[in-house]
Formats: sequence, structure tokens, C-alpha cells
Amino acid sequence: MTDKLEQEEIDERLEDLKIWSIQADKLVTRIEFEDYREACFFANTVFSLAEKEFHHPEVKVEYGAVEIDLWSHDAEGLTEKDFRLAEEIEDAVSDIDWE
Amino acid sequence: MTDKLEQEEIDERLEDLKIWSIQADKLVTRIEFEDYREACFFANTVFSLAEKEFHHPEVKVEYGAVEIDLWSHDAEGLTEKDFRLAEEIEDAVSDIDWE
Amino acid sequence: MTDKLEQEEIDERLEDLKIWSIQADKLVTRIEFEDYREACFFANTVFSLAEKEFHHPEVKVEYGAVEIDLWSHDAEGLTEKDFRLAEEIEDAVSDIDWE
Amino acid sequence: MTDKLEQEEIDERLEDLKIWSIQADKLVTRIEFEDYREACFFANTVFSLAEKEFHHPEVKVEYGAVEIDLWSHDAEGLTEKDFRLAEEIEDAVSDIDWE
Repeated sequence: MTDKLEQEEIDERLEDLKIWSIQADKLVTRIEFEDYREACFFANTVFSLAEKEFHHPEVKVEYGAVEIDLWSHDAEGLTEKDFRLAEEIEDAVSDIDWE
Repeated sequence: MTDKLEQEEIDERLEDLKIWSIQADKLVTRIEFEDYREACFFANTVFSLAEKEFHHPEVKVEYGAVEIDLWSHDAEGLTEKDFRLAEEIEDAVSDIDWE
Repeated sequence: MTDKLEQEEIDERLEDLKIWSIQADKLVTRIEFEDYREACFFANTVFSLAEKEFHHPEVKVEYGAVEIDLWSHDAEGLTEKDFRLAEEIEDAVSDIDWE
Repeated sequence: MTDKLEQEEIDERLEDLKIWSIQADKLVTRIEFEDYREACFFANTVFSLAEKEFHHPEVKVEYGAVEIDLWSHDAEGLTEKDFRLAEEIEDAVSDIDWE
């Protein structure tokens, strides 16, 4: 189990992230896509990263967007694991030219 | 555009469905899976059915479950399209042996 | 197990199909896509149909194309199952506007 | 464009890889899975890595296996790009507990 991060650490880690914010104590993002198949492809990228880190966010796929909520059930808060996966997802967004 | 169904029609159509119910005026279901990869495979099945019907529900993937919300934005209610996709998703659940 | 079809039956069934041909005794097709993510989305559609029919073709994904080979190992030839899945895949191609 | 690697470099790079070998001048591997959905999940992982590196191998999905062929069309041989993607795919295999 990874330790729950303190508010100060969360604020600090958040500064390194561009597409994530805190909502109801979770680390959340919403990424928009031109069409449904793009959104689905990206959802599968998130599924693969989640399985790689063995940390599974809530991933919601809509017509032109994917919403992701990160939170650590076992620690009942945000942990190192949430920020590591958030970073990897952010990298995946910027690596791929989604236009 | 498909017409919004009346409450009576909704109740009638609902009787033919086993895994769907109404929540906040939407047609919703939650299907549980043994592991994440099963859930992801099923999410992709729903993505394909959605694109085939060109009707795109909200699909939420969690560790061991997929939640689906159907609603027709254009009609601001439930339509024939929602029930047709609901049926196809229900068939996909029973066609595949998800154990 | 499904019976191996005779050549005459194969020729007849083939007439109903637009995108399939016979190569080395297998039922094969190659579908081209505008980009990789389109091809991957379609591959996932084929994966779902395969699991629904519990009949698993060889699916090869390249940059802008998906190649599918159908054949029944148990019957050592083409069977009803191959043609049923071929039809479903052909329907999936035409249902979706892949431009 | 990345340069075509010399045979000596290829032999050297190959020593760091466990699941890859050379066949007909391509870098190839075949990974077996317990069932189809596992194989499909892994294929999607490869699709995401391919898009991330913008280098697209041939990925063939069968019932219980995924075969991958890496080669650089533009250089007409194996390049740094092939070995980088090979490494990432190898990491993906070991990161995930595919039992």
C-alpha cells in the first residue's frame, strides 16, 4: 500500500501537471477528441497504462471526450500511484498527435 | 431525429430488458467482470455497437465493472435508439461467456 | 463441430459477399483505413464479433489496413461459421462511415 | 528518417532482448495468452505503443497468441526505432501479470 499524500505534497505535485485538477479530493481530467474512435483509442491507451501500473482509475468515455478520475481506495486519498499514472496519461496525450 | 418515448412506452419496452433500469430519466446498467481486462474487452464491444448504431452512450470503466448510461441528447429523453442499443448490449453480455 | 463445406457451396456463398475472396483455401479480406487508429478501432470490432460467434480468425493490423483470414481448424476447411462471421464483418464495414 | 542498422549493431542490440528474434530480416516475436480477450488486450497495448512511437509494426492476433513483426519501410531494414519499440513491447509483457 502506498501512503496517502498530505495536502502540501498534493499541491506541489499538481504544479507539474498541466491537464489535471482536484475535484472532490480526486485527481481528474477531461480530454476532448474530434470523434468517437479517437476517444476510444485513447481510452484503450489509458486501460493499458492502468494495467501496467496496476492502478485502475475510473474512465468515462462519451462521444467526443474521455474523463478520468484517479483516487486510491486502499489509502482513501491520493497517493504516489495516482500522480505517477496521471503523469503517464499526460505524456500519452502529448506524445500522440490527436488532430 | 427519433421521437422521445412516452412514459407508458418506456415502461413497456423496459419489460423486455433484463439488465437495464431507469435512473434519473436515463436507461442504465452496471455489468461486473472478474478482472480489468474482461471489463475493457466488453467496453470495446460497447464502443463498436455504439459506432454501428451511431448512438453513443456514456461508458464508465472501473476495475471490475462497466457502467453504461443511455439517453438521447437531441430528443432530451429516451428514444427508440436507446432501447435498440440497450438490447444489443444485453445480447452481447449473454452471447459471451464472461467467466 | 460444423461440417466442411463443399466447393459448390463455397462458390455459392461467396456470391453474396462483396469484400471476401478465397486464397489458399481460406476466406480472406483486406480493408484499408485512413489512419492507424481507424484500423485499430475496426480490429476491435472484429475481436468482438469473433468472441460473440466464438470463432476466431487471424486478424493482422498494419498501418492503414486490416487483413482477416477465416478458416475452421476443426473441420480443416471452410464451414458455415466462417461465412457467418464473414457476413457480420462485412456488415460492420458498411454500417460504419469510415471516412 | 532513422538509419538502417548494420548487422553487427543488430546482433548487439538483440542480446538485450529476451522475446525477439530475427526472421527474414525482420524483428519478430510471438506471445501466447490463455485466452482471446487477453490476446486482444495485449494487441491494444501494442497499438498504443506503436502510435506513441509513431512506428507501426504488423500485429497479428490469433486465438491464443499475438505475433509482431517490426521493420522500417523507409530505411528498408531494421533501425533504432524498431529496437526501441521492441523494448517497450517487451517491457509491457513483463509488467503485466498475464496469468
